[in-house]
Amino acid sequence: MTVQRTGATAEADLRRDYESLGERLARRGVEIDALKARAAAFGVAVPSWGVGTGGTRFARFPGPGEPRDVFDKLADCAEINRLTGATPTVSLHIPWDKADPAALRQTAAALGLGFDAINSNTFSDAPGQRHSYKFGSLSHTDAGVRAQAVEHNLECIAIGEAIGSKALTVWIGDGSNFPGQSHFTRSFERYLQSMQAVYVRLPGDWRLFSEHKMYEPAFYSTVVQDWGTNILIAQELGPQAFCLVDLGHHAPNANIEMIVARLIQFGKLGGFHFNDSKYGDDDLDAGSIDPYRLFLVFNELVDAEAWVEGFNPAHMIDQSHNVTDPIESLMTSAMEIERAYVQAALVDRPALEGYQDANDALMANQTLRAAFRTDVEPILAMARLEKGAAIDPVAAFRASGYRAKVAEERPAVAGGSSGIV
Amino acid sequence: MTVQRTGATAEADLRRDYESLGERLARRGVEIDALKARAAAFGVAVPSWGVGTGGTRFARFPGPGEPRDVFDKLADCAEINRLTGATPTVSLHIPWDKADPAALRQTAAALGLGFDAINSNTFSDAPGQRHSYKFGSLSHTDAGVRAQAVEHNLECIAIGEAIGSKALTVWIGDGSNFPGQSHFTRSFERYLQSMQAVYVRLPGDWRLFSEHKMYEPAFYSTVVQDWGTNILIAQELGPQAFCLVDLGHHAPNANIEMIVARLIQFGKLGGFHFNDSKYGDDDLDAGSIDPYRLFLVFNELVDAEAWVEGFNPAHMIDQSHNVTDPIESLMTSAMEIERAYVQAALVDRPALEGYQDANDALMANQTLRAAFRTDVEPILAMARLEKGAAIDPVAAFRASGYRAKVAEERPAVAGGSSGIV
Amino acid sequence: MTVQRTGATAEADLRRDYESLGERLARRGVEIDALKARAAAFGVAVPSWGVGTGGTRFARFPGPGEPRDVFDKLADCAEINRLTGATPTVSLHIPWDKADPAALRQTAAALGLGFDAINSNTFSDAPGQRHSYKFGSLSHTDAGVRAQAVEHNLECIAIGEAIGSKALTVWIGDGSNFPGQSHFTRSFERYLQSMQAVYVRLPGDWRLFSEHKMYEPAFYSTVVQDWGTNILIAQELGPQAFCLVDLGHHAPNANIEMIVARLIQFGKLGGFHFNDSKYGDDDLDAGSIDPYRLFLVFNELVDAEAWVEGFNPAHMIDQSHNVTDPIESLMTSAMEIERAYVQAALVDRPALEGYQDANDALMANQTLRAAFRTDVEPILAMARLEKGAAIDPVAAFRASGYRAKVAEERPAVAGGSSGIV
Amino acid sequence: MTVQRTGATAEADLRRDYESLGERLARRGVEIDALKARAAAFGVAVPSWGVGTGGTRFARFPGPGEPRDVFDKLADCAEINRLTGATPTVSLHIPWDKADPAALRQTAAALGLGFDAINSNTFSDAPGQRHSYKFGSLSHTDAGVRAQAVEHNLECIAIGEAIGSKALTVWIGDGSNFPGQSHFTRSFERYLQSMQAVYVRLPGDWRLFSEHKMYEPAFYSTVVQDWGTNILIAQELGPQAFCLVDLGHHAPNANIEMIVARLIQFGKLGGFHFNDSKYGDDDLDAGSIDPYRLFLVFNELVDAEAWVEGFNPAHMIDQSHNVTDPIESLMTSAMEIERAYVQAALVDRPALEGYQDANDALMANQTLRAAFRTDVEPILAMARLEKGAAIDPVAAFRASGYRAKVAEERPAVAGGSSGIV
Repeated sequence: MTVQRTGATAEADLRRDYESLGERLARRGVEIDALKARAAAFGVAVPSWGVGTGGTRFARFPGPGEPRDVFDKLADCAEINRLTGATPTVSLHIPWDKADPAALRQTAAALGLGFDAINSNTFSDAPGQRHSYKFGSLSHTDAGVRAQAVEHNLECIAIGEAIGSKALTVWIGDGSNFPGQSHFTRSFERYLQSMQAVYVRLPGDWRLFSEHKMYEPAFYSTVVQDWGTNILIAQELGPQAFCLVDLGHHAPNANIEMIVARLIQFGKLGGFHFNDSKYGDDDLDAGSIDPYRLFLVFNELVDAEAWVEGFNPAHMIDQSHNVTDPIESLMTSAMEIERAYVQAALVDRPALEGYQDANDALMANQTLRAAFRTDVEPILAMARLEKGAAIDPVAAFRASGYRAKVAEERPAVAGGSSGIV
Repeated sequence: MTVQRTGATAEADLRRDYESLGERLARRGVEIDALKARAAAFGVAVPSWGVGTGGTRFARFPGPGEPRDVFDKLADCAEINRLTGATPTVSLHIPWDKADPAALRQTAAALGLGFDAINSNTFSDAPGQRHSYKFGSLSHTDAGVRAQAVEHNLECIAIGEAIGSKALTVWIGDGSNFPGQSHFTRSFERYLQSMQAVYVRLPGDWRLFSEHKMYEPAFYSTVVQDWGTNILIAQELGPQAFCLVDLGHHAPNANIEMIVARLIQFGKLGGFHFNDSKYGDDDLDAGSIDPYRLFLVFNELVDAEAWVEGFNPAHMIDQSHNVTDPIESLMTSAMEIERAYVQAALVDRPALEGYQDANDALMANQTLRAAFRTDVEPILAMARLEKGAAIDPVAAFRASGYRAKVAEERPAVAGGSSGIV
Repeated sequence: MTVQRTGATAEADLRRDYESLGERLARRGVEIDALKARAAAFGVAVPSWGVGTGGTRFARFPGPGEPRDVFDKLADCAEINRLTGATPTVSLHIPWDKADPAALRQTAAALGLGFDAINSNTFSDAPGQRHSYKFGSLSHTDAGVRAQAVEHNLECIAIGEAIGSKALTVWIGDGSNFPGQSHFTRSFERYLQSMQAVYVRLPGDWRLFSEHKMYEPAFYSTVVQDWGTNILIAQELGPQAFCLVDLGHHAPNANIEMIVARLIQFGKLGGFHFNDSKYGDDDLDAGSIDPYRLFLVFNELVDAEAWVEGFNPAHMIDQSHNVTDPIESLMTSAMEIERAYVQAALVDRPALEGYQDANDALMANQTLRAAFRTDVEPILAMARLEKGAAIDPVAAFRASGYRAKVAEERPAVAGGSSGIV
Repeated sequence: MTVQRTGATAEADLRRDYESLGERLARRGVEIDALKARAAAFGVAVPSWGVGTGGTRFARFPGPGEPRDVFDKLADCAEINRLTGATPTVSLHIPWDKADPAALRQTAAALGLGFDAINSNTFSDAPGQRHSYKFGSLSHTDAGVRAQAVEHNLECIAIGEAIGSKALTVWIGDGSNFPGQSHFTRSFERYLQSMQAVYVRLPGDWRLFSEHKMYEPAFYSTVVQDWGTNILIAQELGPQAFCLVDLGHHAPNANIEMIVARLIQFGKLGGFHFNDSKYGDDDLDAGSIDPYRLFLVFNELVDAEAWVEGFNPAHMIDQSHNVTDPIESLMTSAMEIERAYVQAALVDRPALEGYQDANDALMANQTLRAAFRTDVEPILAMARLEKGAAIDPVAAFRASGYRAKVAEERPAVAGGSSGIV
């Protein structure tokens, strides 16, 4: 096994690698310090629910030091940001993260964190809830259930305002498991009506993100099943409504980067839930299955920066960490996302455009490949180093003893299954 | 093997079966003669290109009596309609079917046929064509190529007007085989511009159908890749623009009936290219792989009849008959499509709506299943009999000697492959 | 809404429909009473875990009267069998269903039930378990974990022997979520070794069923991922080892009936976990999504009856009932499975073989379609009636008050979610 | 656009980059010259059919200088090898490439080329062929057709022996387009019988490769549909029979690298048809869609080198170049394949094994990612330079004027379509 280089040696190696990469990039007409500045400015939000160990319907296997509440979650998020310097914000999920807003705000501020979009939850029943979401929420046939779901979203906005969020993300599980169970059109009309009731209460500087997903938890039809339905929602609601793209929510073989491009073109891209997937909504670590796809998504985003005024999609992670330490997975994922961004920033766009106009498919493709092939790790690491973050965050985290420390403070959680598969 | 019943016996059996079914339906509150009338009124267009044997990129294996030109194709289409009574119109493909419009009109009239939507072709190069469509047509980077493609579509409209069509179907193969080859947004903008140039020349009583397809012939990205892009096209172009749904053009696992419902809801369903598929755009015979899916599509159409004013989607077949006699496949397919329509008409809609409102998923589903389970063959056969068509069209066709007769008149065609897989 | 016919009227209608169908079948050379006898002899096992409301990783929404333990589950299973006459056996899952074997046996006998294959569970951790299955069970890198998993399977055999089971079903979740996490070959070698340790302890009249699944809970690779791996397992283990096919465990677009045929041909089809699916392992009600596919599977089974000596695949249901009353779903599913069997028994096999030999693809297909199109409900209902089961089991169940009664006895269960998506 | 560096500057840059990379690799304990030697020794066969422009069933758009015959194809292949130094062999397809074997051998030798596996073709009808393969070849219901197909394969072996091939690749299109059309088991039995007749005539130092494919040209079922069926074939035939893996021939979402691992474990991996795909058998350029997947496949191959005696899978390309210059695509693809091999050779295997044994999923994954992230282009380029090939083969090819020259010699080919979609 290779020797882990640390401390002064690691820094010296990094400086040498940065210099060498800088020289190679200069030959391609790229200024490495400018790229480093872009890397340093890049940020992605961590999901509060991501710092606990995830699971499947079959089982959940918790690890040591599972967060007990939103404050533990914020502490974990702070650790991620301390070591990567790339995750300045957290995305909360209500009611799981419900707490005194002032306390949330103060704690976050003390930890150097801010809040990104706030997430409502009408896909499960909270204890004591009046109506059940078993048969839907915003699209439910019963007006009382819909009103409750609308009310919950308004409460999320209120919490978000109190803590400084500027967006509400709405993902629902509404749909059906049987042909015939739901009337597609009436369900969608009810959904639009409910969302309109939320939309009109949105603060003027907020954005409303609706999120599409092909299936799960509904297994025959889902009300917001794809980007086609999603963009119709954003059109119907109005200028503050946008589409959120979760990379794992599409049909097999879908060209996701093209969907991203369409949403940009029609002014309706709101942002992302980053993760990776092989089969479905696997919620795997970003870039771990198909890193080139992640790069191609960022290729669209960097391209749009040049021609879309005020282009500012939300960057958020949404993953389930079932077999790794969630803090390590989130750090690694944030860096992979940043890597894809920097690689995309490396694309020689005038050359690309020239090849596209000339239908030189091979060289157009090679232009992308040349950027993707470049190992930009020295740029990312130097940006981290200069921010006071870690050259190698995972190694630093392991050396820090953080997990052992919180495992002492936080009681062990039993795993298990529901007895129902 | 069971004995084939014919003539008087077959008719007597049919009358008995019709009566018995009528009694069973009456118990469910359904009047069989009303259903028969709906069946009799139902029609689906036959594609001119479907009466020849199809093939794949690997090979084509022609059969006896391949049509030599559009007039042979019309003769074959007439045979299909003669025996099924369900295919009163033909859809032409230009330039393949180019001929003197007056001759086309007269021939069709003499055969008792009309013309449905006319199809343009900018996915292959015609002999003598000035510009190649190798790198696209309506979305090509070169304005000259786009102009040629627009011109071709205008010519199709002109031909269509001369023969009595009322719609133009535009399916293009434009897309890319490599990441980077095309700029998604600029390609789509060029497409929209070209289509606008066609749209403005559309006669006032015509509809323009754009057709989406996930992939093939382009294997990385396709300009009109899904219904999301397709509905944006129809919105951008205007009120005469509609989306055409080919059942085989979707991602694996897609819920097609839900896409149909969305297009209906937003007033943009133009019609169908019916066929069936297991893997991709397989162009298999309608209902041969998943007959319940075909039923679920018609369930949406029959539902819409009740609440969409002037609901009139185009019914067209688009199949490739590689291993069967094309006439037999088209007859069988037309009957399967009609069967799905009649089964959907059987759905007890007030009951269904009641179960949907009550979230009684099981009974809602059973309501659909009860309709699908009903063997409506006596209704279809009686409608044919009363029109003077065949009780059993395939048996009648085989007995007719038609294939042998045209095989004598039409020279044998050699199969083969391109030497390029 | 149509009037629900009951009692004497329903029976009179049924007798009339049975007679009428009998006449139509007689014309096709089929003797209806023989089919009824086959229907009456058909049985499928109910999964003990299926009588409780299922859920997803996002939430579970229990209904009234959830079973508290295995004895409640047996009572529910008995109700299913009482009304359908088609589910004489139950399949248990250990450790969920652990109880005194003698009590299990007596209770089942009193309820008129037997036991089918017993299922082990090494995909979740039971309370107090020594080693965790977080990183695998039978294929775990640690010999201690593997030994524990083997031991658990041996315990399942012991329980099964005590209650009269004759087969052990082994489904594991072992796999990986990241490229590199597991060494494919070493994992599979460890799995084979563990299974061999189970196999050698199998009673001489037992079968060992291994079950493949493409993904979930592991989202990058799964040790027993498809039928290819599964048949290698059965070959390696020996003559008592067979493959279990769960209809929802395959890749998108897979031709499942062909996989069934291959397993039959090589003597390794053990049986089924019936259900239906649109996207993945959706565990939807059998026949609710693609009834023709279910028919095509049974078409292979009925075909095999003619030429495979002692052909006796296990019929078991494996579903998750999230939005219906589990008893109603299981009754309906059992009837759909039986329906597919009877329809498959209707296929005119000499005719089919003739068409296959002549490459008459159209008529071969029509031969299957004619069988599938036949509404065999009168046969199923008459078989039920003659057994003393219900003509319409769902209506009878609703009329029976069973659910309300058990809801009084069994405490309400709260739904909810884990706070981790 | 960046300036293209050439000649002395390019070489100086390369030497500097090679040195710098060498230093970085040395820190990881890797000797760059050893890697370069492995790169230099790597070779992949070019398909003769790949040097012509490919197409789809919709159209084919030829480019300038299409090869007229096998000798033109060999000339093009030689150009590919001259510039990349990585494609020393050619794979022929019979009857397309039929020619005097002595002339083939001499021409190839003069061009510095050898011959890899020879491919038979029973998926299309050759002019003058006695029986048609419309309804199958090796599995056809008619013994005469099967005998003809066997005979053709024997002829391929004879040609292969004359030119120095050591393997026969058998890919057939046999299958069905309709449920019921074929009897799965009888078809497969006929296939096995036919293949046995070929196998027994295989020279003792030859290998027989059977190739699986999910679908196309058959669209309902395919006789050799997946690796499960394929390994059964290889087992049935005997020790000289192996499975060929075409990367584009699998179900959506399939884990191909795991299939490769299974075939290795059971001693039945024969080799590859390299390409890339997004939707189906797209035959896109290797590594152009999912380069990480290609790396993961090579990760299995490099891993196996360490523990499989005499491990020697055949490396062959199988692509369709529809929108690029085939020579450029083949050069680029060969380099991508070689790149994946060298990156896989970089994996720190002792570290990986340690992480796997410790279930450290994150670090195991990072170990693979570190290798994949490394830009090994200097190693590949240096290996080329030292062989006398080009630092930048595409640039060199464009500068060479080869395409213009052959376009003068070889008549232009018209594109077009069949008139049948």
